[in-house]
Amino acid sequence: MGATMGKIKNILYAQSGGVTAVINASACGVIEMARKERKKIGKVLAGRNGIIGVLGEDLIDTSREKKSAIAALRHTPSGAFGSCRYKLRSLEENRSEYERLIEVFRAHNIGYFFYNGGGDSADTCLKVSKLSKSMGYPIQAIHIPKTVDNDLPITDNCPGFGSVAKYIAISTREASMDVASMAKTSTKVFILEVMGRHAGWIAAAGGMASSANGEFPIVILFPELAFDRARFMAAVGRKVRKYGYCSVVVSEGVRSADGKFLSDLGLRDAFGHAQLGGVAPALASMVKQDLNVKYHWAVADYLQRSARHIASKTDVDQAYAVGRAAVEMALQGKNAVMPTIERTSNHPYRWKVGEAKLSRVANREKMMPRGFITRDGFGITPRCREYLEPLIAGEDYPPYRDGLPVYARLQNFPVQKKLPKGFDVS
Amino acid sequence: MGATMGKIKNILYAQSGGVTAVINASACGVIEMARKERKKIGKVLAGRNGIIGVLGEDLIDTSREKKSAIAALRHTPSGAFGSCRYKLRSLEENRSEYERLIEVFRAHNIGYFFYNGGGDSADTCLKVSKLSKSMGYPIQAIHIPKTVDNDLPITDNCPGFGSVAKYIAISTREASMDVASMAKTSTKVFILEVMGRHAGWIAAAGGMASSANGEFPIVILFPELAFDRARFMAAVGRKVRKYGYCSVVVSEGVRSADGKFLSDLGLRDAFGHAQLGGVAPALASMVKQDLNVKYHWAVADYLQRSARHIASKTDVDQAYAVGRAAVEMALQGKNAVMPTIERTSNHPYRWKVGEAKLSRVANREKMMPRGFITRDGFGITPRCREYLEPLIAGEDYPPYRDGLPVYARLQNFPVQKKLPKGFDVS
Repeated sequence: MGATMGKIKNILYAQSGGVTAVINASACGVIEMARKERKKIGKVLAGRNGIIGVLGEDLIDTSREKKSAIAALRHTPSGAFGSCRYKLRSLEENRSEYERLIEVFRAHNIGYFFYNGGGDSADTCLKVSKLSKSMGYPIQAIHIPKTVDNDLPITDNCPGFGSVAKYIAISTREASMDVASMAKTSTKVFILEVMGRHAGWIAAAGGMASSANGEFPIVILFPELAFDRARFMAAVGRKVRKYGYCSVVVSEGVRSADGKFLSDLGLRDAFGHAQLGGVAPALASMVKQDLNVKYHWAVADYLQRSARHIASKTDVDQAYAVGRAAVEMALQGKNAVMPTIERTSNHPYRWKVGEAKLSRVANREKMMPRGFITRDGFGITPRCREYLEPLIAGEDYPPYRDGLPVYARLQNFPVQKKLPKGFDVS
Repeated sequence: MGATMGKIKNILYAQSGGVTAVINASACGVIEMARKERKKIGKVLAGRNGIIGVLGEDLIDTSREKKSAIAALRHTPSGAFGSCRYKLRSLEENRSEYERLIEVFRAHNIGYFFYNGGGDSADTCLKVSKLSKSMGYPIQAIHIPKTVDNDLPITDNCPGFGSVAKYIAISTREASMDVASMAKTSTKVFILEVMGRHAGWIAAAGGMASSANGEFPIVILFPELAFDRARFMAAVGRKVRKYGYCSVVVSEGVRSADGKFLSDLGLRDAFGHAQLGGVAPALASMVKQDLNVKYHWAVADYLQRSARHIASKTDVDQAYAVGRAAVEMALQGKNAVMPTIERTSNHPYRWKVGEAKLSRVANREKMMPRGFITRDGFGITPRCREYLEPLIAGEDYPPYRDGLPVYARLQNFPVQKKLPKGFDVS
């Protein structure tokens, strides 16, 4: 078995943070490409529940999965090996965690660490690369981009975002048509709360609902701009007077000028981010107070990021491509890098996989440029539209049985543990 | 023009109450069938915003729409002519409203009144039929069934329900996979609030997410059963201990034993129904208190009933068929009836259009039979599964352009008014 030979190393793949409709397409790209390169690469092992599984030496042997099961990952949402919200502390704070990772790598003949996540995991990936060298077991650490928030720098866009954007655009169009039907005697304002802590990319996608082939009155609230209640109500009121109704797409991360979230539950996740939610009902009650019209509100929550049934074909293709590219980069001897999406043309849309150094990726967030938001702050500009349109283009339907999509469910066979002791994740 | 001849009468079609993903497919069935019968039927006129438009003599001439626009109604959600929430008062309370309807019918040579709605509109339809006869201008009044709630009697199921059911089943499956991925360190309970004031049919559809090709731990709260906090928490706690996570599908209409909605905003719509919403966050905070686990919640609201992008093919076919059948019944001289869906076989699923007298339909609600709910009250039985499965079967994708579904947007040309005065809808 190549997997146990000295020269031929295994890949360790782990999913990190919130999952998406297409993160498994990246896993599919990694595994299918690695299986094609059996002479150069051993097995693809996966951390069960992400980095937690790596620390605990709880690994999954993907080589025991059937070819058809791996192929089905391409159309399967969620994280097939489990993910986690767990941010490694700094080297100074908890060096033992990093040392444990290297121990696990060494025990399982890992030559390549692929971390599939957002900004936090890019940072972890970079630290692992540095430390492994200083510990005399140099690893090629490659970060595979994934985030619905679309907030990673350098890459033109992030796999995971296009499908959420498509879902939000379609849902906003459909719900707007519903409200338009009801507005004469009933609901006049519909509020849809979408994800996006700091960056308004997902909210921007709501603006795509309105286009040449279907125009709708939509007001967007971006987290990049401070919420001004009076100006917002004036904008909504104008739409209601003109069209009879209005749809509002609001980012969960919207804050007032004094920095307060519209509705902050006060909970924080393991990365220290506020756990948000409930902005839509808060906003709805303000609309009732200020405009006295009937409203409805929806909170899409996990539905938006798991909606593989209506994933963007561009997104699926790109997620697969960055997974595949990680293997190619590994074979080229690259380290501390991330495959990126490079847009080479808008009309027609063309893209290729590029490469970014992790030192330039980690801990940087890409916000909506001001030029993508209309002057009044409540809509998207033609430039934003040109950027978003190809990302939501194309459908990539999963197979169905009995009216439901058939998604892959892996066996997730454990790899036998080799280390003498476990590791307490605190 | 046949439309103005004495013998050849026009159809007046109106949409009522909450719209659905397939009510326009019924309109499509009516108009396409009527266009085939030009020698016997005049024009199809439509009330703008439903019965409000009929009272105001604000009618739409569908004969001026292109064939392709009418065909596109089949894949278009919402109410293409507008709907309304407006319940006619009783004859004793407001006879003038009924008399006005007859006046409008007479002025526009209407021979057939097609009212496309739920239980309330079936009642209105019956009253119109009776009064028109007593006023010497007998109308054939035919009710076309439509309700996402699936609560009309006699018919095996209601057009509009199958598509919501499919959306909820798919969304519950996708979100459950998402939670499963995150549960190790993050969200363990996911709560999805769905529509259904009195009947739990939509909530039941959440149970379909779990099937032979994908099993998931799901707890359902039906409005037919009183909410018992301790028993509910015990059920959720058991799933979390066994599977590591749990999805909850809760009907907006769930009430405690003392009859209180879990979260009642205190608003009422024009039919006197409580305007609900916010059950999911209320339940989520109870879960936090009692089980102390991390949760997420979603409220699907209008997204569920407008999601034409993932409509059930069975539903679309049936919605079209009842529209078409209304025209056939009209030509057969029928009055005060409703086309129904009759299930003639389960394996394979077979159905045909039947017929019910409106006197047997009006003001009766069909609840979930107790035999469709598991003994513990939190799940669906194999009999329920057998009932629901064919209703969510098949996909019927709309056409797409630039990543978005292309839905029909009619011109909605007004019919010239003929009556000397307007009518105040109060």
